[in-house]
Amino acid sequence: MNGRPARFSRTIKTAHVLPPDTNNHGTMFGGKLSAYIDEVAAICAARHSRKPVVTASMDSIDFLSPIGMEDAVTVEGVVTWCGKTSMEVFVKVTSEHLTTGDRQLTTTSFLTFVAFDKDGKPTPVPQVIPETEEEKFLHATAPERRDHRKERKKRL
Amino acid sequence: MNGRPARFSRTIKTAHVLPPDTNNHGTMFGGKLSAYIDEVAAICAARHSRKPVVTASMDSIDFLSPIGMEDAVTVEGVVTWCGKTSMEVFVKVTSEHLTTGDRQLTTTSFLTFVAFDKDGKPTPVPQVIPETEEEKFLHATAPERRDHRKERKKRL
Amino acid sequence: MNGRPARFSRTIKTAHVLPPDTNNHGTMFGGKLSAYIDEVAAICAARHSRKPVVTASMDSIDFLSPIGMEDAVTVEGVVTWCGKTSMEVFVKVTSEHLTTGDRQLTTTSFLTFVAFDKDGKPTPVPQVIPETEEEKFLHATAPERRDHRKERKKRL
Amino acid sequence: MNGRPARFSRTIKTAHVLPPDTNNHGTMFGGKLSAYIDEVAAICAARHSRKPVVTASMDSIDFLSPIGMEDAVTVEGVVTWCGKTSMEVFVKVTSEHLTTGDRQLTTTSFLTFVAFDKDGKPTPVPQVIPETEEEKFLHATAPERRDHRKERKKRL
Amino acid sequence: MNGRPARFSRTIKTAHVLPPDTNNHGTMFGGKLSAYIDEVAAICAARHSRKPVVTASMDSIDFLSPIGMEDAVTVEGVVTWCGKTSMEVFVKVTSEHLTTGDRQLTTTSFLTFVAFDKDGKPTPVPQVIPETEEEKFLHATAPERRDHRKERKKRL
Amino acid sequence: MNGRPARFSRTIKTAHVLPPDTNNHGTMFGGKLSAYIDEVAAICAARHSRKPVVTASMDSIDFLSPIGMEDAVTVEGVVTWCGKTSMEVFVKVTSEHLTTGDRQLTTTSFLTFVAFDKDGKPTPVPQVIPETEEEKFLHATAPERRDHRKERKKRL
Ligand SMILES: CC(C)(COP(=O)(O)OP(=O)(O)OC[C@H]1O[C@@H](n2cnc3c(N)ncnc32)[C@H](O)[C@@H]1OP(=O)(O)O)[C@@H](O)C(=O)NCCC(=O)NCCS
Ligand SMILES: CC(C)(COP(=O)(O)OP(=O)(O)OC[C@H]1O[C@@H](n2cnc3c(N)ncnc32)[C@H](O)[C@@H]1OP(=O)(O)O)[C@@H](O)C(=O)NCCC(=O)NCCS
Ligand SMILES: CC(C)(COP(=O)(O)OP(=O)(O)OC[C@H]1O[C@@H](n2cnc3c(N)ncnc32)[C@H](O)[C@@H]1OP(=O)(O)O)[C@@H](O)C(=O)NCCC(=O)NCCS
Ligand SMILES: CC(C)(COP(=O)(O)OP(=O)(O)OC[C@H]1O[C@@H](n2cnc3c(N)ncnc32)[C@H](O)[C@@H]1OP(=O)(O)O)[C@@H](O)C(=O)NCCC(=O)NCCS
Repeated sequence: MNGRPARFSRTIKTAHVLPPDTNNHGTMFGGKLSAYIDEVAAICAARHSRKPVVTASMDSIDFLSPIGMEDAVTVEGVVTWCGKTSMEVFVKVTSEHLTTGDRQLTTTSFLTFVAFDKDGKPTPVPQVIPETEEEKFLHATAPERRDHRKERKKRL
Repeated sequence: MNGRPARFSRTIKTAHVLPPDTNNHGTMFGGKLSAYIDEVAAICAARHSRKPVVTASMDSIDFLSPIGMEDAVTVEGVVTWCGKTSMEVFVKVTSEHLTTGDRQLTTTSFLTFVAFDKDGKPTPVPQVIPETEEEKFLHATAPERRDHRKERKKRL
Repeated sequence: MNGRPARFSRTIKTAHVLPPDTNNHGTMFGGKLSAYIDEVAAICAARHSRKPVVTASMDSIDFLSPIGMEDAVTVEGVVTWCGKTSMEVFVKVTSEHLTTGDRQLTTTSFLTFVAFDKDGKPTPVPQVIPETEEEKFLHATAPERRDHRKERKKRL
Repeated sequence: MNGRPARFSRTIKTAHVLPPDTNNHGTMFGGKLSAYIDEVAAICAARHSRKPVVTASMDSIDFLSPIGMEDAVTVEGVVTWCGKTSMEVFVKVTSEHLTTGDRQLTTTSFLTFVAFDKDGKPTPVPQVIPETEEEKFLHATAPERRDHRKERKKRL
Repeated sequence: MNGRPARFSRTIKTAHVLPPDTNNHGTMFGGKLSAYIDEVAAICAARHSRKPVVTASMDSIDFLSPIGMEDAVTVEGVVTWCGKTSMEVFVKVTSEHLTTGDRQLTTTSFLTFVAFDKDGKPTPVPQVIPETEEEKFLHATAPERRDHRKERKKRL
Repeated sequence: MNGRPARFSRTIKTAHVLPPDTNNHGTMFGGKLSAYIDEVAAICAARHSRKPVVTASMDSIDFLSPIGMEDAVTVEGVVTWCGKTSMEVFVKVTSEHLTTGDRQLTTTSFLTFVAFDKDGKPTPVPQVIPETEEEKFLHATAPERRDHRKERKKRL
């Protein structure tokens, strides 16, 4: 099981913000955005592992700026690091006001997915080969985040 | 602005798991569940503050067990603690297999909401009066979680 | 096949009212609400019987007050009475204006579900043991409603 | 305010049955169908009155046969009778198995809608002029159903 | 395999325009309408062939007038001509302003569907017997459109 | 009004194929895909013009290969050419089988959008500056497609 370049998993989803995605004040629900984040991250993990995957966890999400009805939202993800059967995915969300062109960082997040074999058992995944500066940084800092997640789950 | 008992904000949502909520392996998407979690928590925060609210952050979510097509999912939330303009909401998700009756804890999570006035500015909210043992415990431990979130946001 | 307390089937669904649920005047479609009523009642019937169920009938629904975009809607159901293979479910719907806190009774309704075995044939269900005053009243008056439904179906 | 022929309000909706419309046994939810019934009936009432309308009530619905994933469902409605500000709409639902061509009557139902003026007050609607045998029969029997509904609402 | 009258396949879908179907200026998305067009045409093709069908192509669509939130939209289709395994479907879309009653032609379109056997191979379909003037005209002009599509596909 | 590089409008949407997007044979509806195509193209046109836009027309779409439940679908668009108030957008759709990694070209399509000012009147848009070989080819061949569309619309 050799490594696979991070870029193989890179996935982008751009979408209109629609009325059912927004609250009465015309800004997008955090929950709707986290559904997009999970969808994009799941495609990243499947592209990397070429296996069925499930979300093991979502790290915390701080919503830095609201997304309005005039915005397009872009969710971009990439696999940053793999354990034996789990993959860490980094997701970045930006909004773009379609008539002014203003872009804002909405949030960044890390999710962890696990790959499955046919019997529904966790199954090994290839390592990630980071290439860009950002990929290398995220790869290098991943084991620390992994340890933090292990601690976190123990306390549940 | 006096306190308001935690129970005033308690909100329950039970739902069928439907095909569009599930992946090809028949288990619910993490993202779909986090959308439910955000919806329930937002209603809790609005019931407590009687103000428009937005999600400031979702703490990490560890998905402990999968939810299948035969399950009903129950999402229950309550406001546990308030700062000046922000509210912490605790959410617990359980699944119930409809024909066997087996129940499983899927996840617990904390979210923070901010209340707004008419000009879209953060506005004060009443304190929470915890009554049950669980509410008192969650209330007492909230300031520590809040400090942790502040640290976290600084590092972004 | 012994009885099962009514409370075992009690099910609550609270939801935001979203733009696609409303007409051009900002009030919720009767049809959207009846879809929620059926969903909650079906979960009640499945929880009571631990079997697959289908809706045999919905009794008439009088919509007493409109539900607006600022409201949360709460749909609560419980199995009230069982025949051999059929179950009567009582559902109550209230709306709550999220910023004023005003609550209104929207409607009450009775639905009948039939439980199925693996061959898709109607199959016996346990009796209901009513415990609260309301459950006892609804249980005592159920046979009369059942007779009325049988008459009604004959005239179709 | 003169009468308007019933046919002016006649409305047909044919639709595929999709996975989110069905339970785990592959048959359509009663609640999803009642949402279609309300949508079609609301268009009938708006076509007849040329006013905004809301659902005042749905009479009882007996679901005579299940609708499966291979079926198309056809919902057809027409205004049958008017009071001063309210309209009775008759809806008939049939399913058609797309590969065998078998058609089944699923249900018939009556709904009542009220027309509104700009201030949200009930406003007069034109009378219905029934033309076909079925329209004439439904028109003639409407006052009796109306009286029955008035009785029913009193008992709530 | 004898012919089948065109009217056997005639299908009508009338629908409310809902907020998620519209852009920020309150008019319906072209893409949402083309999804309705495909749904209606697919039911026409299945009714004609009594086989599973897939969309082979949609001819160009010129959107002649916008559809607003106060409109009902009616999509009507009929099979006009068949090759060996393919069927041409004609679809006409009109909007109707519900309070003024104004109707506008939104667009007309031709789609081609292919019928499948159990192994997923294209399978023969019955010929169409056109009866009305419009059906006869569309039937007579179909082979020319078919040749044009063949040319078009070659150039891809 | 100077030109704007084509790359400014480039938009990518990757999505899971979900059960409600597919027919009973597990392949994606053509209509669902055309809704995605329109959404991506509309974002391209808004990014290029920084104005509200509507779909004036979709050119023909030939669906070359089916998209299954195990696939991710990627829709990519770019503005290729502008008239005075109209923009031509080129869209390419590919599917990728998530476990095998096989990619297939599903279709390519051209759509035309018109930009609006505040009074809902067509309003001028900047020219496109093509940079890549593909952009230059599509730009150079656009006027011929435009003439063809004008002819086509006259014949309606
Ligand atoms: C949430 C938001 C209003 C905070 O804005 P801000 O400029 O940081 O506001 P303030 O510094 O006045 O903070 C207001 C309160 O929110 C709290 N807060 C801010 N960011 C937070 C975070 N990420 N997590 C938890 N609490 C947070 C602050 O501690 C403060 O609490 P207090 O009044 O109880 O002491 C702002 O970041 C925002 O609008 N985010 C987008 C929200 C949104 O649209 N969510 C859905 C996105 S799809
Ligand atoms: C409901 C259904 C199973 C009843 O079938 P049936 O041949 O009448 O069955 P039975 O005569 O054995 O009746 C079974 C039970 O259902 C009850 N029942 C039947 N029709 C009923 C109705 N319209 N309302 C209330 N109860 C009804 C009977 O009284 C009997 O009750 P019991 O066993 O407690 O005494 C059948 O009509 C059906 O499949 N309908 C479609 C259900 C569906 O798909 N709903 C959603 C449509 S979108
Ligand atoms: C449509 C499809 C079955 C045609 O496959 P093919 O290998 O070209 O098949 P054939 O050459 O045997 O053609 C079968 C028939 O389809 C017709 N056809 C093929 N492509 C066509 C097109 N783009 N437009 C119109 N008709 C077409 C052929 O003319 C032939 O018609 P006939 O039998 O009446 O003479 C194939 O391209 C396919 O599966 N496409 C994807 C369909 C789909 O999934 N659509 C939704 C995408 S989201
Ligand atoms: C598109 C629309 C604005 C064009 O209106 P019009 O009166 O023909 O306007 P004009 O003649 O001024 O044409 C404006 C531009 O659109 C172009 N255009 C018009 N119809 C077109 C068509 N069917 N295909 C491609 N371009 C078209 C014209 O060539 C002209 O281009 P240019 O300014 O670059 O030279 C009008 O037909 C409309 O509103 N259609 C409905 C759009 C809609 O709601 N779509 C979704 C339906 S669900």
